[in-house]
Amino acid sequence: MPMHDPIDRYPTRVLHTPGLLDRPDPVIWGSDADPEILGFGSRGYLHRAGAISPDTAARCLAEIDRIEHDPDLRDDERTVREETGEAVRSVFDIMNLSTIVADAVEESGAAHLARRILGSEVYVHQSRLNHKPGFVGGAFYWHSDFETWHAEDGMPAPRAVSASISLTANETYNGPLMIVPGSQRVFVQCRGATPPDHHHESLVTTTPRIGTPSESAVAELVAAHGIDVITGPAGAMTVFDSNVLHASSGNISPLERANIFVVFNSVENRLREPFAADAPRPRHLAAR
Amino acid sequence: MPMHDPIDRYPTRVLHTPGLLDRPDPVIWGSDADPEILGFGSRGYLHRAGAISPDTAARCLAEIDRIEHDPDLRDDERTVREETGEAVRSVFDIMNLSTIVADAVEESGAAHLARRILGSEVYVHQSRLNHKPGFVGGAFYWHSDFETWHAEDGMPAPRAVSASISLTANETYNGPLMIVPGSQRVFVQCRGATPPDHHHESLVTTTPRIGTPSESAVAELVAAHGIDVITGPAGAMTVFDSNVLHASSGNISPLERANIFVVFNSVENRLREPFAADAPRPRHLAAR
Repeated sequence: MPMHDPIDRYPTRVLHTPGLLDRPDPVIWGSDADPEILGFGSRGYLHRAGAISPDTAARCLAEIDRIEHDPDLRDDERTVREETGEAVRSVFDIMNLSTIVADAVEESGAAHLARRILGSEVYVHQSRLNHKPGFVGGAFYWHSDFETWHAEDGMPAPRAVSASISLTANETYNGPLMIVPGSQRVFVQCRGATPPDHHHESLVTTTPRIGTPSESAVAELVAAHGIDVITGPAGAMTVFDSNVLHASSGNISPLERANIFVVFNSVENRLREPFAADAPRPRHLAAR
Repeated sequence: MPMHDPIDRYPTRVLHTPGLLDRPDPVIWGSDADPEILGFGSRGYLHRAGAISPDTAARCLAEIDRIEHDPDLRDDERTVREETGEAVRSVFDIMNLSTIVADAVEESGAAHLARRILGSEVYVHQSRLNHKPGFVGGAFYWHSDFETWHAEDGMPAPRAVSASISLTANETYNGPLMIVPGSQRVFVQCRGATPPDHHHESLVTTTPRIGTPSESAVAELVAAHGIDVITGPAGAMTVFDSNVLHASSGNISPLERANIFVVFNSVENRLREPFAADAPRPRHLAAR
């Protein structure tokens, strides 16, 4: 049965008309007053060029090609393919599948930033590779990561950050990350109960129905804050708040897009029972 | 039967492996040496901010809303709706359906530019409104307009230009026009015979199979020339060569996108029998 915590401060997957709730928790949990950290607090993300070297990015790309074609991982649940065709969309648990990728994350300094932002030690909640091939890469619709992690993984508060490390150039036209700056301060409730084993659908489809903000909520936040399109060369890193509204468009350009995606959660924010789902998701989606 | 002209210099819809052909015709047909015109010759397009006033753009938008909801046009073949849902994707013959839109095209100066580029008098080959609503707007895949007009409408040479006049802001994230500058000098052959009444499918689907360049051709031209993403406020106009490779991404942002699209053909380039189709398309797609 769903365990609706009586003191759940982020109720979602509701059956009534969903609302926009003021975030009761801070964005910056530590006392670091560095301008880069303060900027993260106001915009919900920070961006660093050259977080990893071009060599490291190239080694990770090659590693990924190896993993994508590894027959042992062909039917592994950690490998998610495009709705149409064979192209790999995501490989989960990538830091355990590849020491080269784990080393690249270390090189990026993401964990150090996460500790400064979250004001505590951190652990890896999830790591994955996203690969959006040229011509056929599907979109990721607008969402807050925390909404899913709260509802389906039992993450109590948005005391987590994601690091996206680019292995290819992100141009405006090849499906870059789009962020609604400032939206991290608003928790967008989503409508509808979580079906059993929802992740089988939600990680594949480009148009998920559950855990998706209403169009009116997205329109209201974009009208208030605009959209930042995050572009840059391979090796750049974007660290963003777990609750900031983001998306990426489809990619019909010939340029593929690949990035490493790592989520750091505060050790003071460990997972509990899901807040709005029958059972926790597998460990490769949410480490416990 | 298809009328494959024995002196067809732009053979397409071929059954063998398609190639990239050097364009045997000029891009600039007149002797105008104005820098704006010369720039069009080298990049295959030109862009002007403020081609129509904000007031005119607003009047056209309202007019379009009227036409979209006109019960008399509900099942009219000039109205093309999205593959999924009721949203209107294109309204053809818009200059005859709306004097307000026809006046806006006059205000834009597009016809004058077309005459200077094409070195002759011109006539309207096609006019339409494209409307890409927020959240659900589909992509237009890479294509050369001339390839279709040659194969299906019998346009002998790429002595035609298109004017796209923006009625809404074009941002990088709401599905703007993407152009491969310089690609107008290459005719990209497409593979496969044209099915009967192909336009019933080709104008609706986001992934047409016929009249579509191969991925390798698109990749080669983008590697050589890059991609220009055309953004700007409402009222801006882009005039582009009939053979330049272009596309637009899907739009998952809340911001709708609408533009008037008018094709001017040289009076010395009047349509003949289709070069690679059984029968000409209807007059609202190709005036004769």
